[in-house]
Amino acid sequence: MRDVDRMAADVSSSSPDLQERGTIATELRDLFCGRPVLVTGGAGFIGSNLVRRLVCLGARVTVVDSLLPDYGGNLFNLRDVRDQIWLSVTDMRDRNGLAYLVKGQEIIFNLAGQVSHEDSMRDPLTDLDINCRSQASLLETCRQHNPDVRIVYTSTRQIYGRPKYLPVDEDHPLEPVDVNGINKLAGEQYHLLYHQVHGMWTSALRLTNTYGPRQLIRHARQGFIAWFVNRAVRGETIKLYGDGTQRRDLTHVDDVVEALLLASVNDAANGQVFNLGGELISLLDLTAMLSQLCPDVRYETIPFPEERRKIDIGDYVARWDKIRGVLGWTPRVGLCDGLRGTIDYYRRFGDHYL
Amino acid sequence: MRDVDRMAADVSSSSPDLQERGTIATELRDLFCGRPVLVTGGAGFIGSNLVRRLVCLGARVTVVDSLLPDYGGNLFNLRDVRDQIWLSVTDMRDRNGLAYLVKGQEIIFNLAGQVSHEDSMRDPLTDLDINCRSQASLLETCRQHNPDVRIVYTSTRQIYGRPKYLPVDEDHPLEPVDVNGINKLAGEQYHLLYHQVHGMWTSALRLTNTYGPRQLIRHARQGFIAWFVNRAVRGETIKLYGDGTQRRDLTHVDDVVEALLLASVNDAANGQVFNLGGELISLLDLTAMLSQLCPDVRYETIPFPEERRKIDIGDYVARWDKIRGVLGWTPRVGLCDGLRGTIDYYRRFGDHYL
Repeated sequence: MRDVDRMAADVSSSSPDLQERGTIATELRDLFCGRPVLVTGGAGFIGSNLVRRLVCLGARVTVVDSLLPDYGGNLFNLRDVRDQIWLSVTDMRDRNGLAYLVKGQEIIFNLAGQVSHEDSMRDPLTDLDINCRSQASLLETCRQHNPDVRIVYTSTRQIYGRPKYLPVDEDHPLEPVDVNGINKLAGEQYHLLYHQVHGMWTSALRLTNTYGPRQLIRHARQGFIAWFVNRAVRGETIKLYGDGTQRRDLTHVDDVVEALLLASVNDAANGQVFNLGGELISLLDLTAMLSQLCPDVRYETIPFPEERRKIDIGDYVARWDKIRGVLGWTPRVGLCDGLRGTIDYYRRFGDHYL
Repeated sequence: MRDVDRMAADVSSSSPDLQERGTIATELRDLFCGRPVLVTGGAGFIGSNLVRRLVCLGARVTVVDSLLPDYGGNLFNLRDVRDQIWLSVTDMRDRNGLAYLVKGQEIIFNLAGQVSHEDSMRDPLTDLDINCRSQASLLETCRQHNPDVRIVYTSTRQIYGRPKYLPVDEDHPLEPVDVNGINKLAGEQYHLLYHQVHGMWTSALRLTNTYGPRQLIRHARQGFIAWFVNRAVRGETIKLYGDGTQRRDLTHVDDVVEALLLASVNDAANGQVFNLGGELISLLDLTAMLSQLCPDVRYETIPFPEERRKIDIGDYVARWDKIRGVLGWTPRVGLCDGLRGTIDYYRRFGDHYL
């Protein structure tokens, strides 16, 4: 039994009550110190926050990122850990490159993706190549060159489509309403299939709206929260579609990183999918919260643009009992604190994001 | 209102009781006579049977087929209608070619696909390119060059995975157990999405096990029924996995063709998915039925090969009330008659298939 497996068994056998944050942090340091770990999309928003945490835990981190314009990869995100990682500018569509990079890794955090719903509708085949074809390609590559690696995949709530009930649990029907959702669903299903059929170690987290430092906020196509932060930092008007009462649950990126780490070291996550969730808020209330942090910011409500209305999913809130029960994860960062930290970050480093 | 639309309205408003076979045949002739129609995969098993029927109905048929080895395309299937169609040897992955071919068509029967589950596991990316990427590509091409075309897509029961209940209706969870199922699901979802978001006319039929003349029966990778027919015609032993009691419902290809035609001309099919079904039988009883037609044939039971067991779905039978209610379709060809005709066909033309 490898160390990482033994330690993982220890973590999974301890009860959630005992898994206080301090204890987990110590255990995680033991688990990751010196471990070879690959992060795809590691220069992006969630990826770079994860990479920085992994570096803190002493992991030997390889970062793969295509640095495609508009996709979120930003070397500034990694500037102060640049000497402690191996950064490879590699596109997930480059299978030869991947074959080399996956060898010898113990864990792959597979975060690379195209996240814009609008872009997926405008250019379905590029979204397909990245979110669907590259995922199958990565799994095949691992099956051939490193079948024992653990793979944690970041899936998305978008695969559920318009909620038929709230909160949405993992058994909710999967009826995506845009190309991005279809391709991400296929990507997730490949991961689970390679577990079921080929016995590989894979797990998937279905993320909801993630916010925090290091997100691409330059344009409005990486989710509404990024754009709201942009407007707030710039002191410009936030435009709310419809009446602004649609509700979303928001997860701070630090909590997402924690979930990724926990999933990667706990055998109970193998072959499983888990919802993440967070604080529920209407877009109107979110705007009010931002205007407390940035007094200049204003909002107005406007009719839904036609192209956006067609793929909007209405209210969404996740049930995340499963990951709490199985992995002991709960979100820790309150929305108000999280937003304050986010705004502070962009006020300080906005030049690199705006 | 185009003629095809007006006639379709007539068909959909008549009650199923009135839609006797003769009446429908006359109506279909009126609907298809002179119509420009494209059949992708038109040299294959179901495609060629459809093409022959369309030619009988007087349609102006364009056939697209890649004629890839092992995929089912066979020019012998079209030998006696060759002068009455336009045949283009075009791969669905060739987007430029498709752009030309879709222009001016009123109906596209989109049947081209990779159907082998085993092949999809051995070569996931080829399956993905054909069953997933090419579908998105075709839809994008139509959206740009012929957004008013009607598209009927052949989906598969494989997207349900292992049935959680029987009979399986269209609301059954979608949890495919092999790469082919994942990619076909994505392909179906693209079709429905292009209806929902772009207002295109699309419909999908979820086929179960189809049998009949003109199927590739040379190897065992196009479904068990093709291989059973091969063994029966050659008088060789049929090997049943497990104890042979697993049950399947079989649809004769003529009934599938009828369903495709009905779906294409009835606006009630727009944006809908429909299960097809047929006669339920255990593999053991099917073998017994074949041995009445081919006295030399024997069977033996053998343990499931490991690779096959992992992606087997167990018993399957479809609920097809929806297509009966909405389109007035019912299967007409009895299994015994259908198998007799199939065996006769291969006895006569086996040289072109064995």
